[in-house]
Amino acid sequence: MSSLNTQLHHLQFLEPIQLQSGAEFGPYTLVVETYGTLNAQCSNAILVCHALNASHHVAGVDEKGQIGWWDNLIGPGKCVDTNDYFVIGINNLGSCFGSTGPMSNDPSTGQPYGSTFPVLTVEDWVKTQERVANHFQIKKFAAVIGGSLGGMQALTWAILYPERLEHCVVIASAANLSAQNIAFNQIARSAIMSDPDFHGGNFYAHGVVPNRGLRVARMVGHVTYLSDDDMAQKFGRTLRRATNEAQDYRFSFDTEFEVESYLRYQGDKFSEYFDANTYLLITRVLDYFDPAKSFKGNLNEALSQVLAKFLVISFTTDWRFAPSRSREIVKALLDNQKQVSYAEIDAPHGHDAFLLDDPRYHQLIKAYFDQMKREK
Amino acid sequence: MSSLNTQLHHLQFLEPIQLQSGAEFGPYTLVVETYGTLNAQCSNAILVCHALNASHHVAGVDEKGQIGWWDNLIGPGKCVDTNDYFVIGINNLGSCFGSTGPMSNDPSTGQPYGSTFPVLTVEDWVKTQERVANHFQIKKFAAVIGGSLGGMQALTWAILYPERLEHCVVIASAANLSAQNIAFNQIARSAIMSDPDFHGGNFYAHGVVPNRGLRVARMVGHVTYLSDDDMAQKFGRTLRRATNEAQDYRFSFDTEFEVESYLRYQGDKFSEYFDANTYLLITRVLDYFDPAKSFKGNLNEALSQVLAKFLVISFTTDWRFAPSRSREIVKALLDNQKQVSYAEIDAPHGHDAFLLDDPRYHQLIKAYFDQMKREK
Repeated sequence: MSSLNTQLHHLQFLEPIQLQSGAEFGPYTLVVETYGTLNAQCSNAILVCHALNASHHVAGVDEKGQIGWWDNLIGPGKCVDTNDYFVIGINNLGSCFGSTGPMSNDPSTGQPYGSTFPVLTVEDWVKTQERVANHFQIKKFAAVIGGSLGGMQALTWAILYPERLEHCVVIASAANLSAQNIAFNQIARSAIMSDPDFHGGNFYAHGVVPNRGLRVARMVGHVTYLSDDDMAQKFGRTLRRATNEAQDYRFSFDTEFEVESYLRYQGDKFSEYFDANTYLLITRVLDYFDPAKSFKGNLNEALSQVLAKFLVISFTTDWRFAPSRSREIVKALLDNQKQVSYAEIDAPHGHDAFLLDDPRYHQLIKAYFDQMKREK
Repeated sequence: MSSLNTQLHHLQFLEPIQLQSGAEFGPYTLVVETYGTLNAQCSNAILVCHALNASHHVAGVDEKGQIGWWDNLIGPGKCVDTNDYFVIGINNLGSCFGSTGPMSNDPSTGQPYGSTFPVLTVEDWVKTQERVANHFQIKKFAAVIGGSLGGMQALTWAILYPERLEHCVVIASAANLSAQNIAFNQIARSAIMSDPDFHGGNFYAHGVVPNRGLRVARMVGHVTYLSDDDMAQKFGRTLRRATNEAQDYRFSFDTEFEVESYLRYQGDKFSEYFDANTYLLITRVLDYFDPAKSFKGNLNEALSQVLAKFLVISFTTDWRFAPSRSREIVKALLDNQKQVSYAEIDAPHGHDAFLLDDPRYHQLIKAYFDQMKREK
């Protein structure tokens, strides 16, 4: 087993990018982390796209001791084997882990962008990612892979740059957000925007952070990532005081049940490291994603020009992006006579399953990537 | 068709009540609205228990022009026929529609109770309702009926006062809240309690209302009342500007989609009329409801002494209290060889279905109440 060969890059792009909104934005920086070694033909590159709150740090352990968010899947000898592949993780534009985002200083004012940071789309992100591919002189990715919002980026790669990826792996995703999905995003945004410490997005100048709103936002999100059964299994109705055998109610509004304690902890932790403007931005990126929109809602037409071979995966207990949503993508690909493999994994962990170490899920990914290697 | 014969009562109870928390509370007032006429034997009374945000105003039109929340079900010639039955609607203790609650003045201080109002349980409510039955000299209700949290009260009547109801009608309810249910309640409470205008529950003295928090709380609740399909049907991904044929994105965080507009409207409206402390209180009443708790989680034992005949109804698309939750109640009753009818209504409207005018649902209720009448 060879080393992960982690390389951290701060890529600066001087030329402004034309955004879908019509605005121009730039210069900007993207933080990129790579693993493995790019071969001479530049044919073994895999792009990993992140979801809402993740980053470029996909595999291995960073200088802060943090494990990459897909480390269980990606590394030497793992399902996505960095002995074979050169894997690229990118922190997207607008995020808050080093790439240019709302927290960054606007060079024209010397102040953080805050509320003036442009609203982006998945298409915008993919265009910025294409520049990263060019930087590494990668003409065609062996695969672009992502879960949830990451899957939407993979799908968009196949639509925008059909000749630049051999395989497209879309996990626990959807071709657009349902009204219910949008509703949960809006609740999260309302919690943030109605926090008096938000100051219309320009809280940096006030030396405060809208962490009460951000905490509620994260709690809303978190519940939608877990399955009802999984929560019942993990927490049930257990009361918080492990030392209190009687399990008596305290008749108050303080944290009483284990599930409350867990959610509050998750919310607090998140509000300490995540930027509120980035949360608004990325939930809106999700809301706006809708490749069929330019084709009067016809997903078949939106996918008619793709050339990549697809692997689509969903999880039975995912109610955020349920299997039926993945099947819409699969059907549109099949209607277009594209090559697509689809698996519906019977896993208990809801939407979060795409990040977890489920043997059937990981074996499937491994088999697919092994097959990719043999096809080379 | 005779008149509804609506009577509004403000019943004052001078003797304090012993609460489940151990505290005593009283004197207190309950607002009660009745329809129809109590017969000489006091044998035709039906008690209607309300859910989170409803009141005593169950049927007909009140002086403000508001239609009762179950007017589609209850009235002269309707499924629950007020020509035959004397129907009682009660605003529960702690609510905010006239009965004593956190907004009321504490006679010992001359100030609103606010944060000092006691945390209640469904059992406490049913005990206060029993006093209302005594006031009307009703020894035995023909039926106690409720949906959602109202169903929990009906179930508790059957457990606490088995000889005082002939029929128990439990609609869209559950024998306790799941971890996911509790989680959504906690998110709602967190939104309220982290609003700076909440002032630890004593906002009345500050002349403010935590309506930003209350709005978010209501939005969270509202999404859980609707089904995913129903939201897709009603709103889909339609953009808000009906006049904008192009349906272009505006690239902002303002209300963009119809579903956002709807939820915001619902949240705003709710925050204008509902008391924040009552919201905390009633969500906690829900969390705490768990009749099996005193029996080491054994629902069969909790229901072993009931004498009422049961009608249990659930709705296929209700994901807040799914049909499986109603079936737990039905199974425990059957295991105890109790008389129970159960119907799972194939309705698209999620949890809200219990309030709506679905023909199959209403015909079922009508048939059940007609049968009750024939049995008399």
